[in-house]
Amino acid sequence: MADAALDALIDSLRCLPGVGQKSAQRMAYHLLQHDRPSALRLAQALETAVSEVKHCARCYTFSHEPVCEVCLDEARERQLLCVVESPADQAALERTGSYRGLYFVLMGRISPLDGIGPRDIGMSALLERASDGVVQEVILATNFHAEGEATAHVLSEQLRARGLKVTRLARGVPVGSELEYVDLGTIAHAFMDRR
Amino acid sequence: MADAALDALIDSLRCLPGVGQKSAQRMAYHLLQHDRPSALRLAQALETAVSEVKHCARCYTFSHEPVCEVCLDEARERQLLCVVESPADQAALERTGSYRGLYFVLMGRISPLDGIGPRDIGMSALLERASDGVVQEVILATNFHAEGEATAHVLSEQLRARGLKVTRLARGVPVGSELEYVDLGTIAHAFMDRR
Repeated sequence: MADAALDALIDSLRCLPGVGQKSAQRMAYHLLQHDRPSALRLAQALETAVSEVKHCARCYTFSHEPVCEVCLDEARERQLLCVVESPADQAALERTGSYRGLYFVLMGRISPLDGIGPRDIGMSALLERASDGVVQEVILATNFHAEGEATAHVLSEQLRARGLKVTRLARGVPVGSELEYVDLGTIAHAFMDRR
Repeated sequence: MADAALDALIDSLRCLPGVGQKSAQRMAYHLLQHDRPSALRLAQALETAVSEVKHCARCYTFSHEPVCEVCLDEARERQLLCVVESPADQAALERTGSYRGLYFVLMGRISPLDGIGPRDIGMSALLERASDGVVQEVILATNFHAEGEATAHVLSEQLRARGLKVTRLARGVPVGSELEYVDLGTIAHAFMDRR
């Protein structure tokens, strides 16, 4: 049963987020027992994506070209810069169709427990990008959990020190929800930010 | 944001069991954003495993060689054949160190809802293997949920028709458990099979 190639596959699958030893084993057995064509297709897709998907030189989102479509779009409002944690978050904001400014994609969020500080998420690149003289308002759209809030706090201090207007996405009651089931922190914020 | 290579990667990751659209997206973004070396290592491991890990010609478990180590082991009791659903189950039984016979690994289990019948799990290969004149007892060790039990039922009928002794792993109270928390079906079985 000892099989170097199988063990190497199980070990490699553990690099996927949320996949531990047991899941990796189940995935490896499934692929080899039932779906070898998909395994080869996945291998090919990984190699193609790693070689072809690059980062935009201006906003750091994923892009085929040196500068992404959004950054090149002349119709975008260049005085607005929205800061997000990942290309996935940017995609979510884009799907709403409610924002027409530009983006800056951090490489993650500040997380002292994991040893990730402001340098690791590209804060200096953001400060440089935001100080181009065109950007007037930076909208912080990091996530609304502890680490995302901490990241927003650190960034806002640095950006305000450079004389930029800094805003944060509004916190409040989600659309379609019943007050009875909304958590207390959210309701407290909705009271404070009422309009 | 539309990116063919990224979409192809997300689509390919969905071949992994338990991974849906959202998880696949999170995995793809994680690999491209934070861990490109692991992505390449995974691609390599997939290709190596698919090309190197083959099936044993006798028991159908995973093996580098045409016939696996267990089947070649002269010290094994050749009159005992244990039928399992997957190489993972075989590995679990081997770890107990309580069985010294040979194995036969089915390619899954009978599952009419998924269109998997006796032919798809290699029943004819099992019947041929068990009828070699050396095997005297076939131990059915398919899993103990509905599909595994159905598989065991179908196999036992066919094997008994060929004059073989057929047994099933004992059902009963798990070691270390408190009766209060054991399910009723298990306790009922433990009463019936008391010794």
